[in-house]
Amino acid sequence: MIEIGRSKRALPVFGFDDIAIVPTRRTRGVEEVNLSWKIDALTFDFPIIAAPMDSVMSPLTAIVFGKLGGLGVLNLEGLWTRYADPEPLLAALADIDDPVAATKEMQRLYAEPVKAELIIGRLAEIRAANVPVAGSLSPKNCVEFRDVVEKAGVDFFVIRGATVSAEHVSKVAEPLNLKDFIYNLDIPVLVGGCATYQSALHLMRTGAAGVLVGFGGGSTARTRDVLGIEVPMASALADVAEARRDYLDESGGRYVHVIADGSLGHSGDIAKAIALGADAVMVGSPLARAAEAPGHGYHWGAEAWHPTLPRGERVRFEALGSLKEILHGPSVTPDGTMNLVGALRQALASTGYSEVKEFQRVGVVVHQ
Amino acid sequence: MIEIGRSKRALPVFGFDDIAIVPTRRTRGVEEVNLSWKIDALTFDFPIIAAPMDSVMSPLTAIVFGKLGGLGVLNLEGLWTRYADPEPLLAALADIDDPVAATKEMQRLYAEPVKAELIIGRLAEIRAANVPVAGSLSPKNCVEFRDVVEKAGVDFFVIRGATVSAEHVSKVAEPLNLKDFIYNLDIPVLVGGCATYQSALHLMRTGAAGVLVGFGGGSTARTRDVLGIEVPMASALADVAEARRDYLDESGGRYVHVIADGSLGHSGDIAKAIALGADAVMVGSPLARAAEAPGHGYHWGAEAWHPTLPRGERVRFEALGSLKEILHGPSVTPDGTMNLVGALRQALASTGYSEVKEFQRVGVVVHQ
Amino acid sequence: MIEIGRSKRALPVFGFDDIAIVPTRRTRGVEEVNLSWKIDALTFDFPIIAAPMDSVMSPLTAIVFGKLGGLGVLNLEGLWTRYADPEPLLAALADIDDPVAATKEMQRLYAEPVKAELIIGRLAEIRAANVPVAGSLSPKNCVEFRDVVEKAGVDFFVIRGATVSAEHVSKVAEPLNLKDFIYNLDIPVLVGGCATYQSALHLMRTGAAGVLVGFGGGSTARTRDVLGIEVPMASALADVAEARRDYLDESGGRYVHVIADGSLGHSGDIAKAIALGADAVMVGSPLARAAEAPGHGYHWGAEAWHPTLPRGERVRFEALGSLKEILHGPSVTPDGTMNLVGALRQALASTGYSEVKEFQRVGVVVHQ
Amino acid sequence: MIEIGRSKRALPVFGFDDIAIVPTRRTRGVEEVNLSWKIDALTFDFPIIAAPMDSVMSPLTAIVFGKLGGLGVLNLEGLWTRYADPEPLLAALADIDDPVAATKEMQRLYAEPVKAELIIGRLAEIRAANVPVAGSLSPKNCVEFRDVVEKAGVDFFVIRGATVSAEHVSKVAEPLNLKDFIYNLDIPVLVGGCATYQSALHLMRTGAAGVLVGFGGGSTARTRDVLGIEVPMASALADVAEARRDYLDESGGRYVHVIADGSLGHSGDIAKAIALGADAVMVGSPLARAAEAPGHGYHWGAEAWHPTLPRGERVRFEALGSLKEILHGPSVTPDGTMNLVGALRQALASTGYSEVKEFQRVGVVVHQ
Repeated sequence: MIEIGRSKRALPVFGFDDIAIVPTRRTRGVEEVNLSWKIDALTFDFPIIAAPMDSVMSPLTAIVFGKLGGLGVLNLEGLWTRYADPEPLLAALADIDDPVAATKEMQRLYAEPVKAELIIGRLAEIRAANVPVAGSLSPKNCVEFRDVVEKAGVDFFVIRGATVSAEHVSKVAEPLNLKDFIYNLDIPVLVGGCATYQSALHLMRTGAAGVLVGFGGGSTARTRDVLGIEVPMASALADVAEARRDYLDESGGRYVHVIADGSLGHSGDIAKAIALGADAVMVGSPLARAAEAPGHGYHWGAEAWHPTLPRGERVRFEALGSLKEILHGPSVTPDGTMNLVGALRQALASTGYSEVKEFQRVGVVVHQ
Repeated sequence: MIEIGRSKRALPVFGFDDIAIVPTRRTRGVEEVNLSWKIDALTFDFPIIAAPMDSVMSPLTAIVFGKLGGLGVLNLEGLWTRYADPEPLLAALADIDDPVAATKEMQRLYAEPVKAELIIGRLAEIRAANVPVAGSLSPKNCVEFRDVVEKAGVDFFVIRGATVSAEHVSKVAEPLNLKDFIYNLDIPVLVGGCATYQSALHLMRTGAAGVLVGFGGGSTARTRDVLGIEVPMASALADVAEARRDYLDESGGRYVHVIADGSLGHSGDIAKAIALGADAVMVGSPLARAAEAPGHGYHWGAEAWHPTLPRGERVRFEALGSLKEILHGPSVTPDGTMNLVGALRQALASTGYSEVKEFQRVGVVVHQ
Repeated sequence: MIEIGRSKRALPVFGFDDIAIVPTRRTRGVEEVNLSWKIDALTFDFPIIAAPMDSVMSPLTAIVFGKLGGLGVLNLEGLWTRYADPEPLLAALADIDDPVAATKEMQRLYAEPVKAELIIGRLAEIRAANVPVAGSLSPKNCVEFRDVVEKAGVDFFVIRGATVSAEHVSKVAEPLNLKDFIYNLDIPVLVGGCATYQSALHLMRTGAAGVLVGFGGGSTARTRDVLGIEVPMASALADVAEARRDYLDESGGRYVHVIADGSLGHSGDIAKAIALGADAVMVGSPLARAAEAPGHGYHWGAEAWHPTLPRGERVRFEALGSLKEILHGPSVTPDGTMNLVGALRQALASTGYSEVKEFQRVGVVVHQ
Repeated sequence: MIEIGRSKRALPVFGFDDIAIVPTRRTRGVEEVNLSWKIDALTFDFPIIAAPMDSVMSPLTAIVFGKLGGLGVLNLEGLWTRYADPEPLLAALADIDDPVAATKEMQRLYAEPVKAELIIGRLAEIRAANVPVAGSLSPKNCVEFRDVVEKAGVDFFVIRGATVSAEHVSKVAEPLNLKDFIYNLDIPVLVGGCATYQSALHLMRTGAAGVLVGFGGGSTARTRDVLGIEVPMASALADVAEARRDYLDESGGRYVHVIADGSLGHSGDIAKAIALGADAVMVGSPLARAAEAPGHGYHWGAEAWHPTLPRGERVRFEALGSLKEILHGPSVTPDGTMNLVGALRQALASTGYSEVKEFQRVGVVVHQ
């Protein structure tokens, strides 16, 4: 602990940019590396989840992402469940350059209510393509749409907000009791963001299959500027990974997956996330560079359209290649934005590891 | 203490940008949060004071700010008390783009003497609007205008300078004896800036109702470049908050309010100031973005027009919306410059707090 | 070790930019300084090796560099051994400004196979000029071209990759057994990059005459962005220098040279590398500014043309002067990019040293 | 000490930008502050010396500076002692914008030999104006021109180089024995730069009246880039101030003045230099902004024209006002580049000090 002044101490914390992975005395051929990720009943080719953001995940891109070997999550309170045909709206939004005008237009577009029948239809569309199905809701909409989602059928139920706690206090609205909710749901749940040991441990005790680690701090979020809240990802992951270990002991063997969610703009960040203890990562911005991305070159999160206190911005990303090229290459740019899977495989190979789980033990340094 | 070299040690210090607030295991609905601030006989809807700077506070904007639930402070040695009609002068000043020319023009404008009758008239105008009345003077003008201000009637008397000490030494001018001055004044006094435990403790012993924490280090001040003096706000607040606690004990229960004054450009900074021990904040630059701001898109402090050693600059700010929108939203920009009150309420809600005083205990981290 | 979070600790590390050399109480005339570097049977005028990169080393520039007193290394799997006349290809590549188009063109150019007869011819050309001869291969090509290189005759065999370990694991390809390879080769070997004490010690045990310290982190490499791997050079060198000392003891007196390879853009970096324990340095980018440089104003490494995961970029450098002026001056620019040898000599003189080996003991400071 | 790697430790060091002066519980009227500086037989109005650089000190500006109350030092191996009329050369040099062309022209101009009769004439011109006279030579020219300078008559003899040690080793040239030189000279000597406790202590033992603290690290020097050598000024001063104290004891009472030389671009830096132990400062760049500055808007030091290894650059500075306004104001810019004396006086007043010597004890913080 560091003394900020006589009445306050603070923990020193670190982000991905502060740390780096260190080579070991061994190297390995890339063909020796196995990136597969097993969670609940499913096994994926690689531990990368596509974030439920309207700028990257439509029913179509969720299907493409699933066919490429990953898990795409559709935002069940985004434009695809508010409008029968959001495509013209997305295209028109992309024509607005002015940030304030774009924020106002997003506030207008997202004021349209979410419709149960659209949730059902979108999920059915993905299911029909024979890929894993996952949809996300914010805590405040979980109770209302739970039955709809359960009936539509998903492989994973994602509960996602900037900060989600196991103990939400409210008088006016019936607060979501996460423990009861998850217990009564016959679908594995991924829940977050959380960013500290304590909050993660409490989320693990709700019965979640995985916790999302983040604080609303990706490339689009401005939580730090607006609320003053931030927990840099490297320290958040290293804390939550310890909660996983302690909960494994406390629960007599239940392994809750730690999923990094945010600040993963480059393939090197994905490798660092695992080096710090993540089992998988949920990425947004790299996928916004795909030719298929529904954002038409813009990327934003749910924080961007809050009706009275937007805490995210719309960011411009140039198209780099197809979703397949973003994930599997070949890459034509050396900045860590293409061939994400190949880069992760190479990171393990260059440091002599063959499995994602083992790679959590690789050494890291901090550049002071 | 860190050794700078063999003959000098220095305390490590931190600013708002170095620290961040950490989520807890609890969250709360925003409707659960109470931001009211009680000081002396008055209770305000939120703990935000408008700084006595000519670019943000005119009699009119002080009234608007008061009606919105806060405390606006008029600079009693600014243009409004030097000129019967400063509005054309402010408009003409805004037409000067060159910084040196603008500094010279400010030096010329502020050379005009302050007039007692204008002090009386301006304060009466605010009083007539039925909002709390507060005016500020620098220490050197306190003796001359004390009676005028007392007669005009104010709810708070603000004594404000870059660095104000309880012990000012001077041979040529009769130095202001703060203790006698405050004892003999029948109005609660807010006094500062101060930036260390010792200087704050001495100011608390003068009988002040509140101390302003700052060193002349806002967005317009260049004290660091000109004088080499700086105390980053996070450390200053955490030190002065300890002085408040010690003085509370020493005085047998007198609670002196700690008011952060400077470096509060974003709503996140306001949340951090309270997290570090402030009871309230005095803001300037966010209000310079209001459509009603008298600065016509420019913002400056008293340091900007010193006749021989200006230590502040005039900064350009684009208009964002009305004073009401700046304070209460809705915000249309995700950078922490609009809906300041809503953002503070959300910061407490996101970390599970319901009262400003409790929020002083929230955990912080330091990003190394 | 610093705690990143509850489950992970990290070593603090430093790059050249973080540290600086400190004057001592003695100074020395530059004429007193001896920069000669003796390795195996050869003695060079100064401890600077030209890096085997196509943008700086052609057979011609290797000869010029050797005549100027240093050791130039030709990349034996670059364009000069893939094409009979690469000069028009290099010129055409320099006409492509767009980075993505340039990467694609490099991927295409380097897809052409390496030809044994070209290796033989290029090395013979250098040998004929009566300068020391050295060629480099990546580990995966060593077995195939070993006999060719041995027959062609070189003074130094350089095995160079971003990360080279003494223990490479692979099922599909017969991995290079460095120890056997070096033992059976009758030529001194320089091998790397390595970046840690352990990996360097293992490389030293293979019988190498020198180890290259680096992690693929020069001005052109983007290993950090793509793979998340980085070991800043100052710490890497200070670690590997300790491995040299320990191996000297373990081996009963075999002195393995430590050669800094990467992040040496300015003459000050060369001085720092030696201050941190290097015996010699391998430089790239300063030579890319030579009028004779084959890159025609562009500079890139082998990482830039990886077929599926490029991890280096092509960087633009303006021509400053002849290779002779870059090495020996006179310099006409005060940024450490000309008169590299003169600058190193002056660095020793200004701190009172007369030999490179002694200068490894000079004091350094770290700017926090 | 911090471990850089297993074989190297480094002292953490700090520059002016890392530290700041802290207010105390006392303030003082500016009229209470006495800035006078007494060294040897002379007393100056303020502790600011003008650096012997051709861009700021001509015989004329040395006179103006002296009449304003300070000590101007003429470079006795600059253009004024190489050419009878350098003014047209300085004007022509200012017309060259290209940095490389300017460096080449400076190398050409300064190749002209220094002439004894010009030294005598320039010093006589200053003497005739009835202001203190001081001239500087680099160590290598001291022996040759000593008698000339002594005969011409100066109040201070300045021996100045990037790094000057009491123990210079050379076989080809007879090295300057500083101790003998100073002992045999009947004029007080200021000598430097030095940057560490040990080197300063040795310089103090030569009998110097003052030591210049610096490493060739002002706004024009690029010693760090070219040689890798740097000692940030805050740590250098705090170390050398301790050497002054130890030498005071060792010598039985000889007080050697510590003069900060370099990195003093803003008045705040001057205040910090004294706070860290300096008795006086030698400034260059702020004076280059004077209308009378001979550099015609450009500023450079002796490092800029080294014939084979220039280690300084020519920097552009806009004219701000007269030398008088730069020193004594009124200032019309809030960045610490005007009214240097007034700013120093205000820094003492704002922290409650009345004498420069006492101000060496003011507290400082380090911004991490």
